[in-house]
Amino acid sequence: MAEARFDVLGIGSAIVDIIARADEGTLADLGLIKGTMALTDAAKAKAIYDRMGSAIEVSGGSAANTMAGIASLGGSPCFIGKVGPDKLGEIFAHEIKAVGVEFHGGEARPTQRPTATCLILVTPDGQRTMNTFLGACTELGPTDIDPELLKAAQVTYIEGYQWDTPAAKEAIRKSCHTVKSAGRQVALTLSDPFVADRHRAELLGLVRDDVDILFANQDEIFTLYQVSDLDAAAARLREAKVLAIVTRSAEGAMVFDGKTTLTVPAAPVAKVVDTTGAGDLFAAGFLYGYTHGRDLAHCARIGAMAAAEVIGHMGARPEVPLRDLMAKNGL
Amino acid sequence: MAEARFDVLGIGSAIVDIIARADEGTLADLGLIKGTMALTDAAKAKAIYDRMGSAIEVSGGSAANTMAGIASLGGSPCFIGKVGPDKLGEIFAHEIKAVGVEFHGGEARPTQRPTATCLILVTPDGQRTMNTFLGACTELGPTDIDPELLKAAQVTYIEGYQWDTPAAKEAIRKSCHTVKSAGRQVALTLSDPFVADRHRAELLGLVRDDVDILFANQDEIFTLYQVSDLDAAAARLREAKVLAIVTRSAEGAMVFDGKTTLTVPAAPVAKVVDTTGAGDLFAAGFLYGYTHGRDLAHCARIGAMAAAEVIGHMGARPEVPLRDLMAKNGL
Repeated sequence: MAEARFDVLGIGSAIVDIIARADEGTLADLGLIKGTMALTDAAKAKAIYDRMGSAIEVSGGSAANTMAGIASLGGSPCFIGKVGPDKLGEIFAHEIKAVGVEFHGGEARPTQRPTATCLILVTPDGQRTMNTFLGACTELGPTDIDPELLKAAQVTYIEGYQWDTPAAKEAIRKSCHTVKSAGRQVALTLSDPFVADRHRAELLGLVRDDVDILFANQDEIFTLYQVSDLDAAAARLREAKVLAIVTRSAEGAMVFDGKTTLTVPAAPVAKVVDTTGAGDLFAAGFLYGYTHGRDLAHCARIGAMAAAEVIGHMGARPEVPLRDLMAKNGL
Repeated sequence: MAEARFDVLGIGSAIVDIIARADEGTLADLGLIKGTMALTDAAKAKAIYDRMGSAIEVSGGSAANTMAGIASLGGSPCFIGKVGPDKLGEIFAHEIKAVGVEFHGGEARPTQRPTATCLILVTPDGQRTMNTFLGACTELGPTDIDPELLKAAQVTYIEGYQWDTPAAKEAIRKSCHTVKSAGRQVALTLSDPFVADRHRAELLGLVRDDVDILFANQDEIFTLYQVSDLDAAAARLREAKVLAIVTRSAEGAMVFDGKTTLTVPAAPVAKVVDTTGAGDLFAAGFLYGYTHGRDLAHCARIGAMAAAEVIGHMGARPEVPLRDLMAKNGL
C-alpha cells in the first residue's frame, strides 16, 4: 500500500457557526431541545436568529472541526465539504486552510445555494443547542469526492449528519467502497441522537459492513442500539466488530475494542464555557493518536485533552496549538 | 426643544471585521503600516486575506462600535450605515440590534454591493492594522439619512472615515446643517491620521464651522493641525472653539474645553490583547456621560474604562455589560 498522504480525510458539512449565549427560557420559547442539532429552513432560522443575542461567527462543521483539531495536533488532514459562492464560503475555506487542512470545496459542481450556517445557543451550563440551515451542503454528491483523495488517507472520517442529505449519503456509500477496496479504514461519528434514531437501519448496516472506528456519545449509542446501559451497548459493539469510542461528558470516555474495555477519565476543565465541538475534538485527538501508532488508551487521553481545550472557550475550533498543549501534558 | 429620543446618533461605515493575529513580518511583507487603516480593493483584500491566519468574524465599524458601547452603558443610541443584501449584512444588522442600537441600514436605496469587511491584523503588541473593503458603504448618500432621526438625537456622531466616500460626505454635510438648525450637537472623530491628512482642509472647515465635540488621538490631532506638540494643538483647538478629547493610549486622555485642560489617566488593563475599538469605546463612554449630564472629567473616566474593557479581548465591541462594569468601579 502506498504511504498515506493524509492521516485522516473528513467528509462533512461545511458550516459557519453563529454562536450566542441564551437562557433556558429562550430554548423553551423556541421549542428547541437542549444539546441536540435540528435542521431548520430559512423561516425557522430567521425566527431563531431574531431571538438570539449578540453572536460571534466562526467556522464550524463537525468533521471540519475534527480535521482542524488534527492539524492543530501536527497531523495531515484533508476535508471535503461544499460551500456556497458567497463570503461565508470564502471565510470557511480560508479558515480551514489557515489552520493547515487541505480543503476540497466541491469545485467540480458549483452550487448556487448559500453556505450553510448553524445557529448555536449556548446556555449558562455551557451546553450547546444547534440549528442548522444546510444550504450548499445539500448538494454534496458523488462527483465532489475524488477517489484519489480517499485512497491517500489512512482513515476516512464521516459524519452521521450526512445521512440527512440523500446525495451525500450516496457519495459516502460509494466512498466507503473505495476506501475499503484500497485497504484503508472508515471512521464514523453518529453525530446526534436524533440522527441515530432517524437513520437507525442504515447506520446499523454501515457500522456492521463498513465502519472500522465508531465515535458516539452515550445518548447516541443507546439510541442507535435501543439499549439503556453500557453493557448492552458493549455487547452490540462486539457483534459489530467495530472499534468504538463512547464519550460520556464529565465521566470521560470508554473504548471498546472487541476484547477489552478501557475507561479514560475526562481531562480537567477550569470552566465549561461552551461544549460546541467537544465530541469533534475528542475524535480529532483519538484519530491523531491512532494514525500515529499510539495505543488506544493514549489515543483516548489525547482526545480527552483536545476536548477539554475546546470546552473552555466559545467556538468549536482550538484556540491554542494542540500540539503544544499535548507536549506540556506529557502526551 | 423636544426631548431627545436618542442620546447619540452615529453615522458611519457598517463593517464586519475579520480579525487574525499576525506577526510584524507579515505586515512588512504586505506593506502595511501598523496602527493605521488603509482602503483596499478586492484584489488587495484577497492578497492580504491569503496571508492571514485563522480569524474570527465580528461586527465592527468605528461609529457602530461607539453606538454599541453606548447601548452597553445603558444609553439610547441609533446608527445609520449601509449594508449589502447578503449574509454579512444580516449579521451586521442582527448584532447592532441585539445589543440595543436602533439601526437604519439605508433601506431607502438598496445596494447591490457586498457588505463592507475589514481585515484586521493584530500584532503581538496588541496593535491593530486595518484594511477596509468599503463595498456597500460607498453608497451611503443623503437620501439614506432621515432628518427626523437627526433631530431626535442630542448628539450626532460622525466618522472622519466618511470623508473617503464622496456621497457620504455630502450626506453628512447636509446632516450637520439639520443638526445645527435643530439646536442639537455634532461630534466628529478624526478616525485615522491618514484620513486627517487626506482631507485636512475639509475637516478643518468642518471642525471650525459645525463640530461641537472632537475626538482624536494624538497622532491624528498633530496631523490635522500639522503641529508636533500638545500645547500647539491646544492653541488651535481653542481657536476652533471646540470641545476636544485627545486620547494618548497608555498615557490616558486630555480634554480641552477652551478654558482649561483636564488630564485623565488610562484605566488599568491586565493585558493588551487587541486595541481594535479602543478609540471607539472611549468615545462611547465619553458621549454616554456627556448626554447624561456628567462633568467632563467623569465623562473621560467612563471613556477610559470602556476603552480598557475592549482592549482586553479580541474584537471591538464590549464583551461584558459596560453599565455593570462602571457600577462596579464607582462610575
